[in-house]
Amino acid sequence: MHLIGTMDSPYVRRVAVSLNYYGYEFEHRSISVFDEFAKFAKINPVVKAPTIVLDDGTVLLESSLILDYFEKRGDSICSLLPVVASERARTLRIVGLALAACDKTVQIVYERKLRPIEKQYEPWVSRVTTQLLAALRELEVEVVNQPLYSSDTSISQAGITLAVAWSFYQMMLGDIVAPNQFPGIRDFALEAEALPHFVSCPPMDNKEMEIAERRRLRLDDCLFRC
Amino acid sequence: MHLIGTMDSPYVRRVAVSLNYYGYEFEHRSISVFDEFAKFAKINPVVKAPTIVLDDGTVLLESSLILDYFEKRGDSICSLLPVVASERARTLRIVGLALAACDKTVQIVYERKLRPIEKQYEPWVSRVTTQLLAALRELEVEVVNQPLYSSDTSISQAGITLAVAWSFYQMMLGDIVAPNQFPGIRDFALEAEALPHFVSCPPMDNKEMEIAERRRLRLDDCLFRC
Repeated sequence: MHLIGTMDSPYVRRVAVSLNYYGYEFEHRSISVFDEFAKFAKINPVVKAPTIVLDDGTVLLESSLILDYFEKRGDSICSLLPVVASERARTLRIVGLALAACDKTVQIVYERKLRPIEKQYEPWVSRVTTQLLAALRELEVEVVNQPLYSSDTSISQAGITLAVAWSFYQMMLGDIVAPNQFPGIRDFALEAEALPHFVSCPPMDNKEMEIAERRRLRLDDCLFRC
Repeated sequence: MHLIGTMDSPYVRRVAVSLNYYGYEFEHRSISVFDEFAKFAKINPVVKAPTIVLDDGTVLLESSLILDYFEKRGDSICSLLPVVASERARTLRIVGLALAACDKTVQIVYERKLRPIEKQYEPWVSRVTTQLLAALRELEVEVVNQPLYSSDTSISQAGITLAVAWSFYQMMLGDIVAPNQFPGIRDFALEAEALPHFVSCPPMDNKEMEIAERRRLRLDDCLFRC
């Protein structure tokens, strides 16, 4: 089985970390949807990360659908979603909020990264930033009201997605999403990111970290220009 | 239980049609994420459609997560996903492709609708259109190779999402997604859209249809300007 996509995508990384917990072995192929469009298209013509190629050749896409497949396949060593409806609802609510915040982060990054400055549109960034911060405020309330488990044996899909998402916002939008505004999420993510199944899927290698830092500085220049 | 969001969103509509099949009653509140941002924000501060408010007040978002909740709640009258892993994989593959095409359609529509013409960026629209058409070609192969069920007792989440997605592309991008290029999908969607649980959730009321037609004409003007 192959997982295609770069780990700086929170959608790719939540699948990778979850596969670790489920106990499924996979080969990770770090192919970029931007820098290697044609190479990616040979595997999945839609060029969407994450892409999973199952052993029988079936190609799956969309992280929540991919995880649904593995959650129910019946031969994993654990489940990452509670069975009881009310607990399941809370878990899915947190996953939904964290993914919504990822989507909004991606929209801001795409605006800055994929189009020339004269084509960037501030009202759109402003709208999306409002939504991003609203999602984080909702998540902070959830985490403070009822702490999430962050041990290797009891973490849920809510914990995985929230921690991966938080690291992503921090990496991409450190200045919009100030850690001190959301101490509950920050502390939870710090704990979760130290777990072996997270550590074995770092969001970036060193080279990518340098590129990201340069991008972040450019982003700051754009965001805080007057 | 309340379902919040307008039915011109394929994500809202796939939830509505699925709830009909599951046999869950819900009150639909047609609140727009664009025209009624503040009103929507009072229910879900992230302002994302679909939003579901469960009877105990829990607010869920993201259509695939919402559907996962209802699929497993245990008191629905049917399941919309196969149990056998290989069939489940195929179903989730089709859902993933259809949702990817919806995402790409939304990106094109947002580019045209939400920003002034001087802020629109053709290379982005071109990239996204390539991905949209690739997803539809993959879907056409799936439907032609192994027809989907389109009866009220055997339709799956793949059938629901594909039909709703197709109607959405047609409504929004009739000129990019020509029905005759994808006869397998077209014929399947036509059959599915005649089923009672689809008919009871029309994608638009008459007033919205008029607005959409005017928007489509404006879109054509943008797309085919030289």
